[in-house]
Amino acid sequence: MDGHIYKSFDKELHDLKEKLLLMGGRVEQAINGAIKALEERNSESAQRIIDDDDVVDMEEIEIDEFCLRLLALRQPAARDLRFITTAIKVNYDLERIGDMAVNVSERVLELNKEPQLKPYITLPEMAHTVQQMLRDSLNAFVNEDPDMARAVVREDEKVDHALKQIYHELVSYMAKDYGSVPRATQLLFISKYLERIADHAVNICELVIFMVEGKIVRHQREGDEE
Amino acid sequence: MDGHIYKSFDKELHDLKEKLLLMGGRVEQAINGAIKALEERNSESAQRIIDDDDVVDMEEIEIDEFCLRLLALRQPAARDLRFITTAIKVNYDLERIGDMAVNVSERVLELNKEPQLKPYITLPEMAHTVQQMLRDSLNAFVNEDPDMARAVVREDEKVDHALKQIYHELVSYMAKDYGSVPRATQLLFISKYLERIADHAVNICELVIFMVEGKIVRHQREGDEE
Repeated sequence: MDGHIYKSFDKELHDLKEKLLLMGGRVEQAINGAIKALEERNSESAQRIIDDDDVVDMEEIEIDEFCLRLLALRQPAARDLRFITTAIKVNYDLERIGDMAVNVSERVLELNKEPQLKPYITLPEMAHTVQQMLRDSLNAFVNEDPDMARAVVREDEKVDHALKQIYHELVSYMAKDYGSVPRATQLLFISKYLERIADHAVNICELVIFMVEGKIVRHQREGDEE
Repeated sequence: MDGHIYKSFDKELHDLKEKLLLMGGRVEQAINGAIKALEERNSESAQRIIDDDDVVDMEEIEIDEFCLRLLALRQPAARDLRFITTAIKVNYDLERIGDMAVNVSERVLELNKEPQLKPYITLPEMAHTVQQMLRDSLNAFVNEDPDMARAVVREDEKVDHALKQIYHELVSYMAKDYGSVPRATQLLFISKYLERIADHAVNICELVIFMVEGKIVRHQREGDEE
């Protein structure tokens, strides 16, 4: 292959990264919008996030096809091959994160049928952390930066901490007033969806560390709310 | 390429399928064991499932490497390329399902610190459905059978139904006795983990349908416990 083709392949890898960052940005906006819809009790916004998920689904397929084309036409060597197959998984994670934003929005629609149970403080903070983790995990991927990936994995502690706090608070609401159980459960599920988004971000980081260093970093990130 | 190499590539695709089925079988056994540990209140078994997850993690990497090698050395054409990249995602789903079995087992360890809240009837049934869905989804994948994949997707209704039933029952326990809240919540989380396994099985089926027919089948499978 000549220099021209190499350069063009670099350009395609660059495009792949851009596409993933764009999709990541869209998904991050969806999380942001879902939590805003929760805070503002805005069912219309929540519904829009649910409807807009089709775009994310289409983007996932487009990125997948792009990766397949790169694999078929470029027949990349070891390092690029690993980058592209990792991109396929990152893409899969991003689509799932989009689903989580939809799930949050569906809960918001349910919650808006009843008066607000309590002011939301920890949930929006948790959402903020989770969005930052998502953004940083994608940056770690496109820059192939395992140190940044490790920093994101460490952030997961904040999410665990927030989840515990939310759990205890909601359980005490349920204890005081049985009528609060359905709303408290909805809010508990929203916090679990946010945790799952963090989970996906950590997964992306683990993929980055493995891609760059060949080290397995696996740890259970769930099961310790109490 | 000559006939010899084609035959050998077929053999490698066959090996890939075998590896995925083997890993699927292992993960299915983990789910089975976790629910048995719940029913028998056997913390030792639960701990073993947690420890054994390392094997699943290793298998995931092995299958991934196998796929990478096939992509690099064989430079497969369109159809095989799509099969292998789909296998990479199925593999990713299987590893996550293994994590869910670990999560269930961790809840079992917590539950065993207190007396049993209630007899378990719907949960083991739900686990049974979910295991069957997992098995069928993998068969649909290795046989590239979209009809079978659709049948699995339809089974997901049973899981939704079981989840609703479990949810209502546990909420009524919590209403009657505040002391039951932590155990009821653990059981609620176990049912959610089972739902997520079904979710992964449905994802695998959607991948199969897309791989064979090029049709997108996406639907939200969560958010309707109540």
